[in-house]
Amino acid sequence: MNDLSSDSHRQEVNPHLRQILKKKMDLSLSQMVKGILQGDTGMLSRAITLVESTRAEDRNLAADLIRECLPHSGRSQRIGITGVPGVGKSTFIETFGSYLIQKQNRKVAVLAVDPSSQVSHGSILGDKTRMEALSQSPLAFIRPSPSAGSLGGVARKTREAIILCEAAGFDTIIIETVGVGQSETTVKSMVDLFMLLLLPGAGDELQGIKKGIMEMADLIVIHKADGDNAKRANLASADVRRALRLYPEDPREWTIPVELCSSLEETGIEDIWMDVEKFFRHGEIKGFIQENRKEQAEFWLRESVGELLHDSFFQHPRVAKQWPTVKKEVIEGRISPFEAARSLMSSFTGDNSDLSV
Amino acid sequence: MNDLSSDSHRQEVNPHLRQILKKKMDLSLSQMVKGILQGDTGMLSRAITLVESTRAEDRNLAADLIRECLPHSGRSQRIGITGVPGVGKSTFIETFGSYLIQKQNRKVAVLAVDPSSQVSHGSILGDKTRMEALSQSPLAFIRPSPSAGSLGGVARKTREAIILCEAAGFDTIIIETVGVGQSETTVKSMVDLFMLLLLPGAGDELQGIKKGIMEMADLIVIHKADGDNAKRANLASADVRRALRLYPEDPREWTIPVELCSSLEETGIEDIWMDVEKFFRHGEIKGFIQENRKEQAEFWLRESVGELLHDSFFQHPRVAKQWPTVKKEVIEGRISPFEAARSLMSSFTGDNSDLSV
Repeated sequence: MNDLSSDSHRQEVNPHLRQILKKKMDLSLSQMVKGILQGDTGMLSRAITLVESTRAEDRNLAADLIRECLPHSGRSQRIGITGVPGVGKSTFIETFGSYLIQKQNRKVAVLAVDPSSQVSHGSILGDKTRMEALSQSPLAFIRPSPSAGSLGGVARKTREAIILCEAAGFDTIIIETVGVGQSETTVKSMVDLFMLLLLPGAGDELQGIKKGIMEMADLIVIHKADGDNAKRANLASADVRRALRLYPEDPREWTIPVELCSSLEETGIEDIWMDVEKFFRHGEIKGFIQENRKEQAEFWLRESVGELLHDSFFQHPRVAKQWPTVKKEVIEGRISPFEAARSLMSSFTGDNSDLSV
Repeated sequence: MNDLSSDSHRQEVNPHLRQILKKKMDLSLSQMVKGILQGDTGMLSRAITLVESTRAEDRNLAADLIRECLPHSGRSQRIGITGVPGVGKSTFIETFGSYLIQKQNRKVAVLAVDPSSQVSHGSILGDKTRMEALSQSPLAFIRPSPSAGSLGGVARKTREAIILCEAAGFDTIIIETVGVGQSETTVKSMVDLFMLLLLPGAGDELQGIKKGIMEMADLIVIHKADGDNAKRANLASADVRRALRLYPEDPREWTIPVELCSSLEETGIEDIWMDVEKFFRHGEIKGFIQENRKEQAEFWLRESVGELLHDSFFQHPRVAKQWPTVKKEVIEGRISPFEAARSLMSSFTGDNSDLSV
């Protein structure tokens, strides 16, 4: 179940995508909002496609749509999942998501943040294949990462997709990091709980995980803890617990659980769910879930301002014209970066007011 | 030797600082430039004080000064030094700097980046006390971190201080990270060589170093490798070498040296210097020193643009007026961060043009 689920002409990707966009434009705003609130996943898919569009007219409609859906959002548990490539994130999400639907009566949306992703039918099909069982459930909604140049763009679209999924009644939003590098910080800034999957192994292998990522985790899972890996998984678990003891005490009074899990043998899933439940109960009592969401909202306000400022600056005709020359002069050391920036700013603001630094 | 070295009334800090600023304003631009180019460290101090000033008239004069000094800058070796508090950065810089002056015929400027620093006479005196021998040499110039709210502000001032020090004939610029956290990245972005000092110890203790910091290092020094620490220092060295082997190969074809050093016993200093010399020779042949400086210049251009845009946005009367209300609405979930940002942008640009995101 994804944005192309109603597609019957899979061989013609781009023309079909245009057709979907066209169909979407024919829909009135109120039809779309109504469909989403009724939990129509086809409509949800179209709405997310709209939100991901970069066309100016789509942006305006998308803004209206988000505004209508906003009052119906915010009531889900937002869970981020990260881990190095090969740790089995998709398999885990498939197993964990299916458990949530079957045993916990949940509606699960899976989104992804991958700043490197390109528009390709392959990756969409790939996603379907990756989470086959989950994608067949009417209570699941799986959406690959929006394709976009900048992480900021991907992040905004994912944040808006969360709002739409929540308005459509999904009570568990799982956000997967796909790219490596910065996307962890981005996902962390849009979820309530951040889960780190680790491979069985210890010592040197753990050093492969950026320390900063460990510090972000609210819950750590040693994945693929099955078969020949069982002993190594226990070692890894001990190693992680030892590393965690070196951290300063968590002001939230939350002890980070370290669980062993096998998606293959379906072990550990229930323990992980109990940890998640405990985290949200504890977080709501202590108030840090709400507090975190407020901080995230302000963070995203500032990020959005920064992004819009950046875009309007570099798209400004005078700035765009001067930029290559000024950049060359700075790189060759003929003008200092600060003076160059001041000069470009004068072009941007259209006067010579001396902006204090 | 620092910005208050000519001060004979140490008890009256603030009035005296004002007096220095007043004196400085009486100097003509050409007098200042001439003094700096002649290597007058008193004049250099005043120039840096000017660069650190936030007053609009000072900013204009500072911009002129930097412009005049820029053609005389760029010919030093810029070395960043970092390490956890307690690793002995000041003692190391004192010993290393004195060695450079006495044995290598160098002129050494020591700057610091500490976004948390406040204007206080204490810290200035503290610096003098910390590097007593070095501060007494006429071939050394020691300057504490500019005090400023934002890391961006501290960074700009330090970058400008580098230009002034180079114009004054200092051929070795040492930049020390003082605060913890982000300042390492900032210092890395303004130096040619980044040196990491580590304490003797191994395993768990090494985990206290953020992995990202290890990855930034061009040269690693196990400091305080003396007395009872000798054995632990050897263990640490082996551990670091082992950790380094896990890294992907350096495209610059540079093998990161790991040296043992005692500032107390003055051992290892010469080896470190030979590594530094080798790094610069290798880097100039391979071209990565020059390439790195070009990338840094563009990075600082973009950073400066971002900072100026941010300031002009938040200082804009309409934006400043709307900000508290809009922020509150975003935090309370009544308006999405993206819509709020678009609305503030309209106030900023003064029209309703739909800026594409």
